[in-house]
Amino acid sequence: MCEAAVFMVDDSGKEDLVLGEVDLIEPTDDGQIRMVSIFGEQKLVRARIKSTNLSEHKVFLSPM
Amino acid sequence: MCEAAVFMVDDSGKEDLVLGEVDLIEPTDDGQIRMVSIFGEQKLVRARIKSTNLSEHKVFLSPM
Repeated sequence: MCEAAVFMVDDSGKEDLVLGEVDLIEPTDDGQIRMVSIFGEQKLVRARIKSTNLSEHKVFLSPM
Repeated sequence: MCEAAVFMVDDSGKEDLVLGEVDLIEPTDDGQIRMVSIFGEQKLVRARIKSTNLSEHKVFLSPM
């Protein structure tokens, strides 16, 4: 199974976990990012997808 | 192993494979996206990461 932990990275490089076990990450019509975990949990944040490290099961967001 | 096929999605929704078996996707200093596959192959494109569908091992880019 390929899912990832999604972290928000601030300007100092500090990583904060937003949601774990995420499958879907997609933009919403109002400029946010929706994350959906493999358990169906959802979170919305105003951010953009910055980078991925899939071998470590990580996706990084940066604030808008 | 968690890697993904990276597709560029145009305005009509057409998906074009850019690089398969990708592990790292990261921004470059000059505003491009660098992709690195699990085999070490690299590609650069002027785009941003739009969305992910990790259970299908897919990441979607949109042109800048």
